[in-house]
Amino acid sequence: MKILVTGAAGMIGRKLVERLARDKALGGKPIEHLTLVDVVDSPIPPDAPSAAPIVCDFSEKGVAATLIAERPDVIFHLAAIVSGDAEANFEKGYRINFNGSWALLEAIRHENEKQASYKPRFVFASSLAVFGPPFPDCIADDFAPTPSTSYGTQKAMIELILADYSRKGFVDGVGVRLPTICIRPGKPNKAASSFFSGILREPLNGHAADLPVGDDVRHWFASPRAAVGFFITAATLDTAPLGTRRSMTMPGVSATVGEEIEALRAAAGDDAVARIKRVDDPFVAQIVKGWAGRFDAKMARDAGFTAEKDFREIIKVYQQDEMGAPE
Amino acid sequence: MKILVTGAAGMIGRKLVERLARDKALGGKPIEHLTLVDVVDSPIPPDAPSAAPIVCDFSEKGVAATLIAERPDVIFHLAAIVSGDAEANFEKGYRINFNGSWALLEAIRHENEKQASYKPRFVFASSLAVFGPPFPDCIADDFAPTPSTSYGTQKAMIELILADYSRKGFVDGVGVRLPTICIRPGKPNKAASSFFSGILREPLNGHAADLPVGDDVRHWFASPRAAVGFFITAATLDTAPLGTRRSMTMPGVSATVGEEIEALRAAAGDDAVARIKRVDDPFVAQIVKGWAGRFDAKMARDAGFTAEKDFREIIKVYQQDEMGAPE
Repeated sequence: MKILVTGAAGMIGRKLVERLARDKALGGKPIEHLTLVDVVDSPIPPDAPSAAPIVCDFSEKGVAATLIAERPDVIFHLAAIVSGDAEANFEKGYRINFNGSWALLEAIRHENEKQASYKPRFVFASSLAVFGPPFPDCIADDFAPTPSTSYGTQKAMIELILADYSRKGFVDGVGVRLPTICIRPGKPNKAASSFFSGILREPLNGHAADLPVGDDVRHWFASPRAAVGFFITAATLDTAPLGTRRSMTMPGVSATVGEEIEALRAAAGDDAVARIKRVDDPFVAQIVKGWAGRFDAKMARDAGFTAEKDFREIIKVYQQDEMGAPE
Repeated sequence: MKILVTGAAGMIGRKLVERLARDKALGGKPIEHLTLVDVVDSPIPPDAPSAAPIVCDFSEKGVAATLIAERPDVIFHLAAIVSGDAEANFEKGYRINFNGSWALLEAIRHENEKQASYKPRFVFASSLAVFGPPFPDCIADDFAPTPSTSYGTQKAMIELILADYSRKGFVDGVGVRLPTICIRPGKPNKAASSFFSGILREPLNGHAADLPVGDDVRHWFASPRAAVGFFITAATLDTAPLGTRRSMTMPGVSATVGEEIEALRAAAGDDAVARIKRVDDPFVAQIVKGWAGRFDAKMARDAGFTAEKDFREIIKVYQQDEMGAPE
C-alpha cells in the first residue's frame, strides 16, 4: 500500500513515520511507498521502504491534487499551523488549516469521481481545541464543539467536512482529537502548554523547570507513543460502526499538576521534584483555565484506541523512548 | 439604519420584509433603507421605506463585497438552496450555502478592517439539520451537531465561522436554528416535510390532504409569524451574554401528527379531519424518522425568543395571517 503523511517532519509526524518504517506494514498490508510532505525536509528512517520526502506547502494551489494523483491508500493529515500562529495570523490559519485540508479532501473527491473504487482512509489530526468553555466537569462524546480559538474553529470545520465526505462515500475518514502530548521531547517552547512536559522532562534530565500555574490545574494527556498508536488505530479500524460520527476524542490520562509532580517523585525522587521552580505566570494561568481537564472518550475506547493509564506510565514511556531505558 | 435581506423573495423573507416595512423601525431605530436580494425579484411592500430589490446570486464572485460596501447595519442572511437540492447537487450546495455565506462574512471583515467601528449585526438562518441521529429524547443546547446531510453540514460550518468572526470582533453574529415552519401558506411542495403543513392547511381550505406517516411521528414546529419574530429578536438582542455560543435552537412546539390532527379537530371540526387521507409512504417515513422531535431551547428562551405554546395557537396564527381571521 501507498501512504501519504503530511506534517511528516513534525514531532508526531517523525515518530509516526519511524513506526511505519519499523512495522513495514499497516493493518496487515505491506507498505510499498511512503510520501512524506512538510514545509521542511522530512527525515527518512534508515529502515524505511521506498520513501520520498516532498518539501512543499500542501495548502498552495494545485499541490493537493498533485499529492492525491498518486492515489495513496492511506493519508495521515497532520500538517497544520499551530494554535498561536492561527490566532495571530487569521487569514493564514484559515488558508492552511481549513482551505488546505479541504483541498486535500476535494482532490480525493475528484479522484473518486474518476474511479469510484478510490476511497482512501483519511486520518485527520484534530484537536481538543474544538471544545471551548463553559464545559461540564467531564466532556462526553456528544458535547457540542464551540471553539474559543480560530485554530479550534478550523479543526471543527474540517471534522464536519470529513464526516460529510465520508457519508457521501468519497473518502473513509477518521478524525483523531489528540490530548495534550506529554512528555514532549526536546526543548521548552513558547506554547502555553509547554510547562506540562517541561516540569517532568527537565528534572528527569537534571535541569530546572519553571511551573507557572498551581498544583490543582487539571488537564488531559497522552504520550507521543500513544499518539502514534491513535493514528495507526485510526488507519486500520472498521469505520462501519462509526456512522456519521467520524471524529473522536482520544483516551488519555486526566491529571492535575500535583499528580504529575507526585509521579515524577515516584520515578526520580525528591531531588528531581526539587528542580521545579514555582514562578507564577497569570497570563499562562488564564489561558490554561480555558482548557478542559477530563473527557469521557467512550466512543474511541470502544473503537479500540488506547492510551496510558496514569502519569507513571507516561513518564516510563519517555524514559524508554527518549532516555534509552529498557522496555 | 440600513438593512440587507438575502433570500428576500422566499416565504419567510417576504414576511420578514413586510414586518420591517410595517414596523418602520428595528430595535427602536428608524429604518432608512432596505436592500432586498434574491435570485428572483423581491416584492416591495407598499408601506416600505426606501427599498431596492437586487436580483443576483449572492454567492457569485464579487457580489458579497458589493452588497456589504454599502455597510448595512443589520444583515438578515436567509438565502440558501434547500436541503434536497444541496444533497442532489453537492458542489452547488457548498458553493452557495457555504462559500457564499462565508464570502458575506469575509466582505464584512474587510470593511471592518477599513473601519473598526463597522461591526454589523449578522442574523444567520441556520437549521435543525445541523443535528443528526442518534439523538437523545430531548436535544439540549450543548448537544453536538453531527449533520446527516450536506445542507446541515454547510449550516453547521457557517455557525462555526460566525462564532469565530464574532469572537474576533469582525461582526456581531446570531445564528437562528429554525424549527419546521408550520403552517406554510401556499401549495404542497416536494419537501419531505410538506405534509406537516398540508394536513392542516388543505383541510382548513376545504381540500383533501395525504398523510404519509403514522400518528406517533413527533417533530418541532413554529409558525411563519414566530420565525419572523425570531429574526427580529436576533437582530435586536444583547449579544454580550452569548459568549462564543452564537447559534441557538429556536423554541417551538413539540407535537405528534396525532396532536396536530386533534388541534385541527378543535379548530375546524370532524369534517376537516375527514379530509386527511392516510396514504403510507415508506420513503417519506424513513426520512422523517431521522428528524428530532423535541429540543430544550433554554438558551434561546433565556435570550428572549418566543414561539407558539401549542398547535391550537399555530393554527390560529394561520387563520389570522392567511385566512383573514380577526386577531
